[in-house]
Amino acid sequence: MKSDEEILEAVLRGELKMHEIERAVGGDVLRAVELRRAFVEKKTGTHLKHIGHFSLNAERAMRANIENMIGATQVPLGVAGPLRVKGRFASGEFFIPLATTEGALVASVNRGCTAINRSGGASAFIVAEGMTRAPVFRANSVEHAINAINFIRENEEKLREIAESTSRHLKLKEIQPFLVGRNVFLRFVCETGDAMGMNMVTIATDEVSSFIEEKTGLKLVAVSGNVCTDKKPSALNFILGRGKTVVAEVVLSEEVIEDVLKTTKEAMFEVVMRKCLVGSAFASSLGFNAHFANIIAAIFIATGQDAAHVVEGSLGVTTAEIVDGGLHFAVTLPSLCVGTVGGGTPLETQQEALKMMGVAGGGTPEGSNARKFAEIVACAVLAGEISLTAALAARHLTQAHIRLNR
Amino acid sequence: MKSDEEILEAVLRGELKMHEIERAVGGDVLRAVELRRAFVEKKTGTHLKHIGHFSLNAERAMRANIENMIGATQVPLGVAGPLRVKGRFASGEFFIPLATTEGALVASVNRGCTAINRSGGASAFIVAEGMTRAPVFRANSVEHAINAINFIRENEEKLREIAESTSRHLKLKEIQPFLVGRNVFLRFVCETGDAMGMNMVTIATDEVSSFIEEKTGLKLVAVSGNVCTDKKPSALNFILGRGKTVVAEVVLSEEVIEDVLKTTKEAMFEVVMRKCLVGSAFASSLGFNAHFANIIAAIFIATGQDAAHVVEGSLGVTTAEIVDGGLHFAVTLPSLCVGTVGGGTPLETQQEALKMMGVAGGGTPEGSNARKFAEIVACAVLAGEISLTAALAARHLTQAHIRLNR
Amino acid sequence: MKSDEEILEAVLRGELKMHEIERAVGGDVLRAVELRRAFVEKKTGTHLKHIGHFSLNAERAMRANIENMIGATQVPLGVAGPLRVKGRFASGEFFIPLATTEGALVASVNRGCTAINRSGGASAFIVAEGMTRAPVFRANSVEHAINAINFIRENEEKLREIAESTSRHLKLKEIQPFLVGRNVFLRFVCETGDAMGMNMVTIATDEVSSFIEEKTGLKLVAVSGNVCTDKKPSALNFILGRGKTVVAEVVLSEEVIEDVLKTTKEAMFEVVMRKCLVGSAFASSLGFNAHFANIIAAIFIATGQDAAHVVEGSLGVTTAEIVDGGLHFAVTLPSLCVGTVGGGTPLETQQEALKMMGVAGGGTPEGSNARKFAEIVACAVLAGEISLTAALAARHLTQAHIRLNR
Amino acid sequence: MKSDEEILEAVLRGELKMHEIERAVGGDVLRAVELRRAFVEKKTGTHLKHIGHFSLNAERAMRANIENMIGATQVPLGVAGPLRVKGRFASGEFFIPLATTEGALVASVNRGCTAINRSGGASAFIVAEGMTRAPVFRANSVEHAINAINFIRENEEKLREIAESTSRHLKLKEIQPFLVGRNVFLRFVCETGDAMGMNMVTIATDEVSSFIEEKTGLKLVAVSGNVCTDKKPSALNFILGRGKTVVAEVVLSEEVIEDVLKTTKEAMFEVVMRKCLVGSAFASSLGFNAHFANIIAAIFIATGQDAAHVVEGSLGVTTAEIVDGGLHFAVTLPSLCVGTVGGGTPLETQQEALKMMGVAGGGTPEGSNARKFAEIVACAVLAGEISLTAALAARHLTQAHIRLNR
Repeated sequence: MKSDEEILEAVLRGELKMHEIERAVGGDVLRAVELRRAFVEKKTGTHLKHIGHFSLNAERAMRANIENMIGATQVPLGVAGPLRVKGRFASGEFFIPLATTEGALVASVNRGCTAINRSGGASAFIVAEGMTRAPVFRANSVEHAINAINFIRENEEKLREIAESTSRHLKLKEIQPFLVGRNVFLRFVCETGDAMGMNMVTIATDEVSSFIEEKTGLKLVAVSGNVCTDKKPSALNFILGRGKTVVAEVVLSEEVIEDVLKTTKEAMFEVVMRKCLVGSAFASSLGFNAHFANIIAAIFIATGQDAAHVVEGSLGVTTAEIVDGGLHFAVTLPSLCVGTVGGGTPLETQQEALKMMGVAGGGTPEGSNARKFAEIVACAVLAGEISLTAALAARHLTQAHIRLNR
Repeated sequence: MKSDEEILEAVLRGELKMHEIERAVGGDVLRAVELRRAFVEKKTGTHLKHIGHFSLNAERAMRANIENMIGATQVPLGVAGPLRVKGRFASGEFFIPLATTEGALVASVNRGCTAINRSGGASAFIVAEGMTRAPVFRANSVEHAINAINFIRENEEKLREIAESTSRHLKLKEIQPFLVGRNVFLRFVCETGDAMGMNMVTIATDEVSSFIEEKTGLKLVAVSGNVCTDKKPSALNFILGRGKTVVAEVVLSEEVIEDVLKTTKEAMFEVVMRKCLVGSAFASSLGFNAHFANIIAAIFIATGQDAAHVVEGSLGVTTAEIVDGGLHFAVTLPSLCVGTVGGGTPLETQQEALKMMGVAGGGTPEGSNARKFAEIVACAVLAGEISLTAALAARHLTQAHIRLNR
Repeated sequence: MKSDEEILEAVLRGELKMHEIERAVGGDVLRAVELRRAFVEKKTGTHLKHIGHFSLNAERAMRANIENMIGATQVPLGVAGPLRVKGRFASGEFFIPLATTEGALVASVNRGCTAINRSGGASAFIVAEGMTRAPVFRANSVEHAINAINFIRENEEKLREIAESTSRHLKLKEIQPFLVGRNVFLRFVCETGDAMGMNMVTIATDEVSSFIEEKTGLKLVAVSGNVCTDKKPSALNFILGRGKTVVAEVVLSEEVIEDVLKTTKEAMFEVVMRKCLVGSAFASSLGFNAHFANIIAAIFIATGQDAAHVVEGSLGVTTAEIVDGGLHFAVTLPSLCVGTVGGGTPLETQQEALKMMGVAGGGTPEGSNARKFAEIVACAVLAGEISLTAALAARHLTQAHIRLNR
Repeated sequence: MKSDEEILEAVLRGELKMHEIERAVGGDVLRAVELRRAFVEKKTGTHLKHIGHFSLNAERAMRANIENMIGATQVPLGVAGPLRVKGRFASGEFFIPLATTEGALVASVNRGCTAINRSGGASAFIVAEGMTRAPVFRANSVEHAINAINFIRENEEKLREIAESTSRHLKLKEIQPFLVGRNVFLRFVCETGDAMGMNMVTIATDEVSSFIEEKTGLKLVAVSGNVCTDKKPSALNFILGRGKTVVAEVVLSEEVIEDVLKTTKEAMFEVVMRKCLVGSAFASSLGFNAHFANIIAAIFIATGQDAAHVVEGSLGVTTAEIVDGGLHFAVTLPSLCVGTVGGGTPLETQQEALKMMGVAGGGTPEGSNARKFAEIVACAVLAGEISLTAALAARHLTQAHIRLNR
């Protein structure tokens, strides 16, 4: 085996590629990570000391989460709460881990938690569920496409069998066919246990697609045809849902609004109406909310979710209604893609964050941990919306940023 | 001063709040972080060992980036490239830092870099620029609103002066007025030097809004009225741009497509047409692309950008056109919100990642570092799009996921 | 009974309202129309001679189609075709009646018919069907909303019975429940025989809503809650369909493209890609087509459809694909709201236009006339798209307008 | 010259095409219309008596509005109002001509007029103006595209000169360049006097496009690239406006709401919030209103506007706000495409309808008639929205339809 210096030299000379270092060091992942980092340091004239400071198990990460690893990024982790959640799966008080670099965010969510707790807690409901993948096929003609769709409808059981043979965690709920010209989109909707499930569904979809190709003569063009829709904002996800569709609500008393949020129900209502409804309408936005994405991003990074799913998480509506004695406040998240197994969830710090909420790993029964987690996330989003709405109403937002960021 | 145990007890008994620990320990931030973590461990019955393992400067982080800190999340960091970029600000070869937990992503971007490099590099162009914030005001009537808008148009110089007095880095480019009923939205568009600039613009907007309230009688309802649009997907951002609007392109030769990407230009073209155009059209998506968000999220986390801005980053169009000798491939990113100073950029690992690309801190002239960074990001997105498109065309996607994730 | 002069005087003095003239003349509708027209002439100092020149049965019109009638608007009616249609319901050659004031439109559709006929005719397929109405209800809480939705799911048969008791032509296919905060939207999807059916569905929906209010405690806020979505463009209609969802296609041979359309398949393909796909994508349009609305509007006015449904008719996608020997050209219309009974269809000129196509009145079996008509409309739209695309490709559009309109 | 029978025979035998009849009869348009109608009657076995009953000048119509004319469609014309309008151009009381086949529509608008009149009239404001056309060009590369855009920006005066040389009525306000990959869209925004102006702008655009092609090497692909956006719903038109952008408002007193509208301000507010805002948001609609399209369609048909522009007219927002003593009610129409000269406006019945409102022909100064008309239309839309909202709130809608349509 070559020495570190020899290997580094080989990479610098271009004889060895970055991703070939593992092999060159006989599979010693940590050594490979260090050598690759040394190589990048050399080439870029930098010192990547902090990137090299990590405690996660590189070997496992490189099997499932990363290639060409050189270390880890440290994202500051704060905690909000506890937050009182009254869900079907999550019931009790939960600390909310938030990995973020945006000053004031944790404090803001924390204030929202206080407002919710003092109002008796937030209720959360999962109203729909299903991870999706939608391949696009080319038909010879529209007639061919229609015949193929009929075949698919008539052979649903067979297709389900094929799909579910690819994973014991997967249940095919539905195949939604859509036709545009002679393009056929088949949107597979699946339950995926406690996993977010995108890869699981992709594998199942690929398998079924092969069968469909063989039996119908349709030609698979891409296993993802954007009708999924994965990691792009889409009205389709907003309407039909993707991942978990969750609604959370609380009635804030006037006293809480005054004491904790330093404003009035009328002022909060006006912010929601003019900003979240009229403003978003004018902007042709799919986000009729204040800042779902902030809370989603921070929890997703903290818990090893796919950070690109912040896009789906940003969809949804915040509503506020003046009711007797207070303000009914609700968030509707049509497309919350979360899981407690798979993806980045087994990574050390992420796993610890999930454990903090009692949702690490697979649940009993299967799927219950992911659902519990989804309910907690929705309530945390509710807390964030309440707090920011109140800050805008009371005009505290700018002051918070001035104080914290400058 | 109290002992750790005493403080912990006080927090557990609810006499001291989590965010009051700093004060209780006389401002010793690291000690506060540990005590808070200990508190959360106690309350949740967990051991947060890895979360406590970090090298970032907690004191600085707690001043600007986080509250109720208990440690840090470690996100695996890989590197793709080098990638040959031919921009106006970025010129040369760059390593792309990607903090992600999604297996195959770094490898995929890396392959895209190879394809681009072997095609002579990617060109990148910033075609528009401006961070935005749009407060919503209530007028007494539509006539009142129109008079106020006229006042604003006639006093642009005065408003600019007020705006620019709030920061020497800020230049007010334009105030775009929009009217819906008697709601007035004023979209402030500003250059913000090397900062992403959202807070800077918010502060300026707030200041100008006070002046407008005083002079016109409009009532500020919220300093952000969602016409900004911040962290929500919106057609408005897609069309008018937010942050940097960047286009990157490359012509892939047939040889590269065959050798590196293992497919054909016809197959890649078909994927882009049926998936990115027709599929996204059908889904009413604002993302006519394959997976912008994946690359954006990974770079944003690695470099201390605001992760919720992945939402804006997911907007945009991928185009592919068969041309003589190859495939013209381009990405158009209307709303790339990036900065090299402020936000999470000074954090240790993030700063190192920026340094890897030679874009840490303020540029000379001001703004040039952020622009350089934007060009690099756009080319990295281009690499990611090329690679995934090819994988779909060659049907390698599922196999990659099967190999890596299971 | 008073004389004409006396009645006119009374209306002019404001003692009698315009809509009370019918009563004053003892129900003599024609006389009422003339008196009202005379009144408007007096008040506005105009002479409405041509408006008074009509042959339609005013009495019948005033029962079902119009109030305060003063006469009729004459819209020039041209005819395109014959057009060879190969549908499941429409099979053969059809003349297309087009009531329009836009010069060049009939000629353009006519040319498209020629191109289609010379390519062997156009195929048309109805892929989905269902007129919709979606009331919005207020629940007391999200939990209340969910319970109510469960009630609705469990009592589908009972609700169907109530709905179908309101009309022997109506079949309730599905109730799609959607939840936003504590707002409950129930989208009723119905078959409505040969009628476009919006009123029929509204009546059924209203009846069922009363039952739901009584049994669940939900409060009906509006029998139309815009999730229908009626006469407003919406992604929801684009994706889920409203009225008939129809796809039509033809393969144009190269010879036809050259001889009839004076251009090439490559040029036509490029227009569709850059205009209908990329251009509409950038504009965040729900119309990925050239000018569906033109043909829809002209046929709708000619045949007594609801002209406001041109909005739904403008939704959809035009696709073009280069294939061996020619160009595959298709239109996908997700939301074509048409009927051959009810609405304006019994009016004299409209009835004649429907008869021209053999689709006047109810079909045997029920619904077959409306379906036949939908297939013809889709093929006419296809003809219009082909012709305009070719004109743009050959740059004939402007010339046509210059010649005809100036 | 041949006899009628001979010509008819020739057409039936296919020796003469429908559009060649004019020539065969020596340009006798009326005779040609009758022969063509006779031909269609023969071929379809129908009797088109009423279609043949018209008083419009066929010769003029066939020069500008129609080809292959066989007669006219009679659309029942009712009148609502008078409506008190307080605009900058329209001031006074106006009768609203509505050509429709939808029972209850005229009565509903009429009731809205009463409510407005009794509240002192409606105010209307044109807040922006400009007919648009956006050609799409292909560039060789993004760099080429950017250079071309720079050329266009630097030569704005020259381009304006070319554009304005094509018509003395046209003023080029702005060219808005947009870039997607190497596709260049140039959105021409023009004032067009009293004409709706689409053709005028197309001709100017075509002329300028030729110059741009010559000077920059860009290749014009289509003179309309859907960024216009003409006759397709688009967020771009919603945000940037097309034609006239008009806002109209009224404050309804509680007394009027009770007496005329038979409901309460709270109930009307709730309908607008849950239906027009939340419902449309959920449906991803661009129409945050109740039924703009109904009123627009009826006025457009009555006055010779382009009926396909109902699509643009359906865009916009209805807002309602509870204020002291009543309800502030407003409509915002971003894209109202109207004219009082050109198109179908010179047709006899249409001209009479325009005269009824005192807006026929060109105004003094130029453009003032079209603006006056736009203000009237916006107020009529306001009347329609008020009435339907109230009917929904009072649950009268269904009853009206039951009474009138069945």
